[in-house]
Amino acid sequence: MRILGIDPGTVVIGYGVIEGSGDTAILVDCGALRSPPRLPIAERLSRLYNQLCEIVSRYQPDAVAVEQPFVAKNVNSALAIGKAQAVAILAAANRGIPVHEYTPAQIKQRVADYGGSSKEQVQRMVGLQLGLSEAPEPADAADALATALCHLAEVHLGRLLAEQT
Amino acid sequence: MRILGIDPGTVVIGYGVIEGSGDTAILVDCGALRSPPRLPIAERLSRLYNQLCEIVSRYQPDAVAVEQPFVAKNVNSALAIGKAQAVAILAAANRGIPVHEYTPAQIKQRVADYGGSSKEQVQRMVGLQLGLSEAPEPADAADALATALCHLAEVHLGRLLAEQT
Repeated sequence: MRILGIDPGTVVIGYGVIEGSGDTAILVDCGALRSPPRLPIAERLSRLYNQLCEIVSRYQPDAVAVEQPFVAKNVNSALAIGKAQAVAILAAANRGIPVHEYTPAQIKQRVADYGGSSKEQVQRMVGLQLGLSEAPEPADAADALATALCHLAEVHLGRLLAEQT
Repeated sequence: MRILGIDPGTVVIGYGVIEGSGDTAILVDCGALRSPPRLPIAERLSRLYNQLCEIVSRYQPDAVAVEQPFVAKNVNSALAIGKAQAVAILAAANRGIPVHEYTPAQIKQRVADYGGSSKEQVQRMVGLQLGLSEAPEPADAADALATALCHLAEVHLGRLLAEQT
């Protein structure tokens, strides 16, 4: 199955596409979308939305996994992150693609086997799991790939559990 | 000019369309959009987005005015409100319609001449300004109309100031 992972930030949105089978996956594409911070917020959100729609059209993922921050620093940053998350969710949901949200702790647990792993440890594990010699760059893209791998692991675990019952 | 005002809540999105000229306006339409809270968040956001896009298509506003909450109760409600705001912003910005954001204090100041007015006072003023015998209902629609009237007053004031200089 093809999974698009998204790490929605207020200035940069990381994305990563993997093609997974069972619990193994290969990298299809990854990168970071930016919109100039000096632009009005409406134009920034619209540009990011259109860039994400373009990626969804190009790669036709079966599922989209979005990183959901568990805690934001304050109310203002939470408002901004909520907007970025909605951009990611709408780009997928408006085309009928199922959207799954994961917290950073869930992603760390599934990708690095430990919910308290550092960001760097998770990024190295992403590289290892995708058979790359180094962690993918930029960091936002690696985080997005971690979110996609988290969803693949969830689906794989769900299938194993279903087979046992 | 035709203005669409939006009051983006996490369960209900109020909308109100006015046709304004100078500092007077008439009501075109208003109402509240809902999406069942039991649905997954992605589907709820997508449904609200599509309903708003439909309203934008039907009324072809020259500008969209969105109420921006100045303070959210906590980080979690701020994340949810941020998502609802993004839905409103994208429905307009994706069609190239200018989006303006106003805080509740700005709206109260422009519509009821006093930033500390109660919600009920503002809603009554909305009814008076639109020549209605009662405040529009539901309350979310009245709040959306207040946001549209705030933008009309802002544009009118801007023109008056420009003529004086």
